Amino acid sequence: MDYVYGPGKNHLFVPGPVNIPEPVIRAMNRNNEDYRSPAIPAMTKTLLEDVKKIFKTTTGTPFLFPTTGTGAWESALTNTLSPGDRIVSFLIGQFSLLWIDQQQRLKFNVDVVESEWGQGANLDILAEKLAADHAHTIKAICIVHNETATGVTNNLATVRKLLDHYRHPALLLVDGVSSICALDFRMDEWGVDVALTGSQKALSLPTGIGIVCASPKALEASKSAKSVRVFFDWNDYLKFYKLGTYWPYTPSIQLLYGLRAALDLIFEEGLNNVIARHSRLGTATRLAVEAWGLKNCTRKEEWHSDTVTAVLVPPYIDSTEIVKRAWKRYNLSLGLGLNKVAGKVFRIGHLGNLNELQLLGCLAGVEMILKDARYPVKLGSGVAAASAYLQNNIPMIPSRI
Amino acid sequence: MDYVYGPGKNHLFVPGPVNIPEPVIRAMNRNNEDYRSPAIPAMTKTLLEDVKKIFKTTTGTPFLFPTTGTGAWESALTNTLSPGDRIVSFLIGQFSLLWIDQQQRLKFNVDVVESEWGQGANLDILAEKLAADHAHTIKAICIVHNETATGVTNNLATVRKLLDHYRHPALLLVDGVSSICALDFRMDEWGVDVALTGSQKALSLPTGIGIVCASPKALEASKSAKSVRVFFDWNDYLKFYKLGTYWPYTPSIQLLYGLRAALDLIFEEGLNNVIARHSRLGTATRLAVEAWGLKNCTRKEEWHSDTVTAVLVPPYIDSTEIVKRAWKRYNLSLGLGLNKVAGKVFRIGHLGNLNELQLLGCLAGVEMILKDARYPVKLGSGVAAASAYLQNNIPMIPSRI
Amino acid sequence: MDYVYGPGKNHLFVPGPVNIPEPVIRAMNRNNEDYRSPAIPAMTKTLLEDVKKIFKTTTGTPFLFPTTGTGAWESALTNTLSPGDRIVSFLIGQFSLLWIDQQQRLKFNVDVVESEWGQGANLDILAEKLAADHAHTIKAICIVHNETATGVTNNLATVRKLLDHYRHPALLLVDGVSSICALDFRMDEWGVDVALTGSQKALSLPTGIGIVCASPKALEASKSAKSVRVFFDWNDYLKFYKLGTYWPYTPSIQLLYGLRAALDLIFEEGLNNVIARHSRLGTATRLAVEAWGLKNCTRKEEWHSDTVTAVLVPPYIDSTEIVKRAWKRYNLSLGLGLNKVAGKVFRIGHLGNLNELQLLGCLAGVEMILKDARYPVKLGSGVAAASAYLQNNIPMIPSRI
Amino acid sequence: MDYVYGPGKNHLFVPGPVNIPEPVIRAMNRNNEDYRSPAIPAMTKTLLEDVKKIFKTTTGTPFLFPTTGTGAWESALTNTLSPGDRIVSFLIGQFSLLWIDQQQRLKFNVDVVESEWGQGANLDILAEKLAADHAHTIKAICIVHNETATGVTNNLATVRKLLDHYRHPALLLVDGVSSICALDFRMDEWGVDVALTGSQKALSLPTGIGIVCASPKALEASKSAKSVRVFFDWNDYLKFYKLGTYWPYTPSIQLLYGLRAALDLIFEEGLNNVIARHSRLGTATRLAVEAWGLKNCTRKEEWHSDTVTAVLVPPYIDSTEIVKRAWKRYNLSLGLGLNKVAGKVFRIGHLGNLNELQLLGCLAGVEMILKDARYPVKLGSGVAAASAYLQNNIPMIPSRI
Repeated sequence: MDYVYGPGKNHLFVPGPVNIPEPVIRAMNRNNEDYRSPAIPAMTKTLLEDVKKIFKTTTGTPFLFPTTGTGAWESALTNTLSPGDRIVSFLIGQFSLLWIDQQQRLKFNVDVVESEWGQGANLDILAEKLAADHAHTIKAICIVHNETATGVTNNLATVRKLLDHYRHPALLLVDGVSSICALDFRMDEWGVDVALTGSQKALSLPTGIGIVCASPKALEASKSAKSVRVFFDWNDYLKFYKLGTYWPYTPSIQLLYGLRAALDLIFEEGLNNVIARHSRLGTATRLAVEAWGLKNCTRKEEWHSDTVTAVLVPPYIDSTEIVKRAWKRYNLSLGLGLNKVAGKVFRIGHLGNLNELQLLGCLAGVEMILKDARYPVKLGSGVAAASAYLQNNIPMIPSRI
Repeated sequence: MDYVYGPGKNHLFVPGPVNIPEPVIRAMNRNNEDYRSPAIPAMTKTLLEDVKKIFKTTTGTPFLFPTTGTGAWESALTNTLSPGDRIVSFLIGQFSLLWIDQQQRLKFNVDVVESEWGQGANLDILAEKLAADHAHTIKAICIVHNETATGVTNNLATVRKLLDHYRHPALLLVDGVSSICALDFRMDEWGVDVALTGSQKALSLPTGIGIVCASPKALEASKSAKSVRVFFDWNDYLKFYKLGTYWPYTPSIQLLYGLRAALDLIFEEGLNNVIARHSRLGTATRLAVEAWGLKNCTRKEEWHSDTVTAVLVPPYIDSTEIVKRAWKRYNLSLGLGLNKVAGKVFRIGHLGNLNELQLLGCLAGVEMILKDARYPVKLGSGVAAASAYLQNNIPMIPSRI
Repeated sequence: MDYVYGPGKNHLFVPGPVNIPEPVIRAMNRNNEDYRSPAIPAMTKTLLEDVKKIFKTTTGTPFLFPTTGTGAWESALTNTLSPGDRIVSFLIGQFSLLWIDQQQRLKFNVDVVESEWGQGANLDILAEKLAADHAHTIKAICIVHNETATGVTNNLATVRKLLDHYRHPALLLVDGVSSICALDFRMDEWGVDVALTGSQKALSLPTGIGIVCASPKALEASKSAKSVRVFFDWNDYLKFYKLGTYWPYTPSIQLLYGLRAALDLIFEEGLNNVIARHSRLGTATRLAVEAWGLKNCTRKEEWHSDTVTAVLVPPYIDSTEIVKRAWKRYNLSLGLGLNKVAGKVFRIGHLGNLNELQLLGCLAGVEMILKDARYPVKLGSGVAAASAYLQNNIPMIPSRI
Repeated sequence: MDYVYGPGKNHLFVPGPVNIPEPVIRAMNRNNEDYRSPAIPAMTKTLLEDVKKIFKTTTGTPFLFPTTGTGAWESALTNTLSPGDRIVSFLIGQFSLLWIDQQQRLKFNVDVVESEWGQGANLDILAEKLAADHAHTIKAICIVHNETATGVTNNLATVRKLLDHYRHPALLLVDGVSSICALDFRMDEWGVDVALTGSQKALSLPTGIGIVCASPKALEASKSAKSVRVFFDWNDYLKFYKLGTYWPYTPSIQLLYGLRAALDLIFEEGLNNVIARHSRLGTATRLAVEAWGLKNCTRKEEWHSDTVTAVLVPPYIDSTEIVKRAWKRYNLSLGLGLNKVAGKVFRIGHLGNLNELQLLGCLAGVEMILKDARYPVKLGSGVAAASAYLQNNIPMIPSRI
């Protein structure tokens, strides 16, 4: 194996997997346990209850699949839809593209609404399609809340308004992988039917839990959905929920304890404070990018993402080299540009258990890398812009007042 | 949450998840990392190469799915078969039953060969079916190497001989969840086409990796298999193998480092020594059961499992109470009897990173529990029988000579 | 470095350092912190308050020295006595011998009362000395509560009675290294002036905290004690206690969190339940030794120790070989015979965070080793004797009822 | 206990205890072990050999005391000197003051050479004293290599030159607590007789090992030194070194494994690269301080410390408030001003396992805090100055090229 030790901490600023807080690392530092003893079901019960809070739902039913976000996608689709069903799906970047690819391979009839990368989902077209769909042939709207490849946040409230306006019964399926627990997400208020996230994103855990939350309407739909599914079938879980043993197959003991610790930290900070912290970090990052004279991949302010910023580099720079150099010289992990924006953007992930000084260290590093790459950045300029904002906005740490 | 602390170590003798050795717990005690940096692919490459050794294959292609054994089952089936395909499957206990249930739900035409629980797969019937199948309608034989619910090990060499004898081209798909890395398993020699295991079994890791290994013939079959699959599709992995980035979606960094450490420990001990240790632990357990005057759920010696022993209790005892009491009074975790043998057997798992004195502590505990349950056991009798055997057979620890 | 990996858990049965429970290992799994922030003093305050409970004192003042038991000895002596002071000290085994050696090197006038190894402190001679000492030339009585080398527990209540009977003002200094938090120890009731223990014994932590607790009389004595001391000076601590910052020099952050977790576990189990558990484990061990036909190094029942049992081997066996073999073949760590009893005894430590099945595994191992050494032990006999007692006496785990 | 959780990493910039690298935390994440088994002596042997390298000595004898720096001081003094011995000692800040206090309490005749805080040891006066001391009444020179309270590094090469020039046989005892393994320290070349450090400083471990290294001349002196000592006596260690068991009393198993890992990391990076990294971090910090328009507590460049920078604040600011605010608002731990410079300086520790982006995050934080305190700092100015230097000087990480 290549040996890659560098002194000091790795500065982890990819948009997932993200930094795990020490209390969560500690909680997972343990031997296996019998998951059929009374202890694990008792803990699982609290997890299922508490995980609903991060979706802002009281009526949803959560499932903790031993899988990744990709698996969570599959679970959302196969439990609610049947092969051939028409779904409207928005292509705005690499992750929405991958989800659409999955939708197609799962044999749905995907009505793709494409935008340029850097733009949000085109909701005008959605409006048109809904308006035209008197027969209700559209069975579901699939939308990524936050496109991680371009740093674009879609407006889910508007999607709901359109569905309501046209009294359209389509299910609303939302990929919240890089949003839930970091951005403002309101499952019940927005009438989201299936929302999902992965443990390694804003929850700040290792990869391994795909969290899917289903509305009563989605559960109802699952009864008639014809898509073939076993591992990802909600029904197996529901049976074990009734039995009170909760697990149709073996969960990761470590991740359950880790999730318990992660939720405890989030509730202690306060979910809305967590969201406000992400807003601060996102704003600070964008101010730095502006100060550097660089462009955000995201075209309009309304789509700015508070969890990831994709930074466009000038044509004479290869963003892949920026990312390589960050790792090789500064022990800084940045996100690559993917697919259409490969070489054109690098990404700063600012989600999860992260604070302002960590971000400022990252921004200072980016400045040096830009200079390494002969971009005429003024060193300190981005940090200055970000800290001018932050110094006015960081709250005292409540537990330390 | 119910609080369940008890002093001292938990004695974990369920047949999975099993005890994790300290060096593996240490290896996993870490923050997340960028899985797209050069470090993770470099490590993954060594893992894929080394994991083949525990399958005893040089021609197989391994996949490390972020899933459980149930997901690994699904991956084995959907990548090699098409809906409607006829498969012969053996029902001999709860886990083979669950696999068969999955096979049916995935729309295969399952030809179930049932045995009484406690017996091995009926290979005479297999012979008959193969003999009769001139048209080669049987596309696959699905067999559990070691049925964890009853402690029955099937004879895979014989299955291969029958297929060869009848020159039958059916694929041979093997659930090796509670066998691989503990029992003698020979993928290449036995012509197994897909073999699979889970990280929380003999590899002694947390739950979270479903390891699937495919023969060249299985890979070939995957090209024409029509079963719908995305998350579990081998092809996505193969694409990323070619790119040298290895991961179509985010793996668990912690489990990769854990797997590295687990393989290192196994190779240091020597895979055949690991297997021999399981044989010692299995034999010792069976000698204890005999000394207690109890019956092994497994009917014949040829099927005796070296990874799990299901012990039949007298009719006046409820084995579920044995398991409860073990946990509540002795901090000992035993396996429940499942489904048809619920209440009738309790199970002692003796697989994974375990040594003889740990087992003897467990056996001493079982004796006390049996006495608690008013079974007229002679205290010390099982331990005496087991240690008489072990004292003659335990080797010196090579690193300490 | 010699590589010494063996599969499975190491069975740690030396009388210190002992097994650390998982919750304590987790609590210590952390980065350093600034010990001058408000957090560490706040935690220290709770530790100092709570640690008094394990000494059963309300009037004592505890000190958490970053040192071992040897350093704690030195602190107890130098803070209360002046060079040339006469002290009565009991030599009954290796650890009392080492303490006496220290007393002599610290220039005290040590009046040694020697017993044969295996016997307790000769309190008749103490009575004579006290009776004769009308001038109160004896400034302190130094006694080891539990001599770890021979498994002998002295009767401290009687020591106090004698001092009271003769109205003698000598200080009573007690080494409680292998007793406190495991045996019944009552600082206030027995009028102990300085008591001490080490973190790696019954508290089940790593080595590194020497805990010294001083009575008001001892604190008063420290004002006039002329022994030179700086690192071990109580006065430096008392100054910082007053300031509320607590630490005259840097403590181990990890051990403080570990101590917090260790105390929490002890209080959850209940200190008296902890003591009762040690009594069970001690009794069970002695019953096994008897069943093997071997002798306890401890000569009389009144001195039997519930934390360590020193087992005499027949003359044709070298106990050092027993200990070596235990480690080399069975991954079992037993205690060596030390000094006068080297080669003649091996020791089973049964203190700290340990449960009955762990002990039975150890006893089963000892039986096999004895057989290896050609001692005609009946395999299973010790385990049978121990479990016959334990099966009648182990309580249900309260948190699991 | 006050609860003090804040999101994200704590930014630990006190000059000890310092950040522990993850591989070291992992190495210490373990149960206790028998320290008398063959494993621990074998590992200890490598530690004693390797630890000499960080002192740059081949002739020295190291001792790993289970203690802190304060204990290491005591060991250095009591093993080489007798009460009443004249020693020359330099008072230049809080830590040299504390050592002098210890020297006096240990009954040495301390000839104190005082400088203003912020200045280095006055070596002109040393020259005078040596010149005048024809009778060689001076038995030892005691000097702190790096005064942690003021960020002053003394010139040890000059001290040696003076001793050689006057052919003076005084022992040279050096406190290297905040220098060894971070600054250029050359025990053999500089003829240092006793050098010492603590594990929680540049070695980046938890507190708990006081490392003392003695020259042959110091060992010789220990034979006639009359100071009373037991716990800190070198002779007990030397006896056990000869026996090959190494430990006169129980060491911390966890710290031994931690030290092994820490040394491995240092040797992998290369000791001289470690020193160069500290030089970079020190220079960058001083450039930032200058850019902020603030003064370094250290008066002359020749004394500048590469491990800690004490920053003078304007008279209208209380530096204690800076430190409090850093912790309460920014999760940043800075060093307080101590004693004479309390309220006047805050300290930035930049030693141990630390990299440039971590430092830049800290500097950005300090800027915001200064602004909070109404000091008219230009945000980004310090970061700009530091990164202008760093961008030119950071090497590529060798393992990643």
